[in-house]
Amino acid sequence: MKESGRKQGAAPPCAACKLLRRRCAQDCVFAPYFPADEPQKFANVHKVFGASNVNKMLQELPVHQRGDAVSSMVYEANARVRDPVYGCVGAISSLQQQIDALQTQLAMAQAEVVHLRQYE
Amino acid sequence: MKESGRKQGAAPPCAACKLLRRRCAQDCVFAPYFPADEPQKFANVHKVFGASNVNKMLQELPVHQRGDAVSSMVYEANARVRDPVYGCVGAISSLQQQIDALQTQLAMAQAEVVHLRQYE
Repeated sequence: MKESGRKQGAAPPCAACKLLRRRCAQDCVFAPYFPADEPQKFANVHKVFGASNVNKMLQELPVHQRGDAVSSMVYEANARVRDPVYGCVGAISSLQQQIDALQTQLAMAQAEVVHLRQYE
Repeated sequence: MKESGRKQGAAPPCAACKLLRRRCAQDCVFAPYFPADEPQKFANVHKVFGASNVNKMLQELPVHQRGDAVSSMVYEANARVRDPVYGCVGAISSLQQQIDALQTQLAMAQAEVVHLRQYE
């Protein structure tokens, strides 16, 4: 089930264990998702969610869903670091505004189609 | 700067201090945003972000931005509790799909308008 090719004692600790200054065990829950060469990926997740919460959230999920959970947490954490007030909720508001604008434009275009068809 | 009307010793502790079983000081950073009568609001934020991270994030913001930051964190935390794999990133994907669909519909309606105008 492990996605990394680490061998005990052979590879450097994962980015999480390195930041937390702890031994990176062979069954480390972070190692498959936080490789040593991407330290910032874990740093933001740790800053926003906290390592122990991330650990707990991953442990509560089946292994095949953990990669997606990590991706969404990394996305949320990066958004929160960029925008400490709104985080990725800022993106949601902006997408909802785009939807409102598109729905208005679509309604206008459809009304024009109906109008023009009268003269076909 | 306080938004709550608590008086020391007169009111119950805020929802955060109650959950964390600590004394709710008069300058408690959580109290204005997590009233005693909304325990679930803090419970999810604590589960997802951790009380000490929320404390740190609020302290790093000016007081006038903390209410919005709490609202967005509560939104994100509730989304993560409902959907532990995708959290509010699931909402972002779904909104983006709606935008793609609306853009396609709009392009079709606009093309039809152009076509119909040829016969005006």
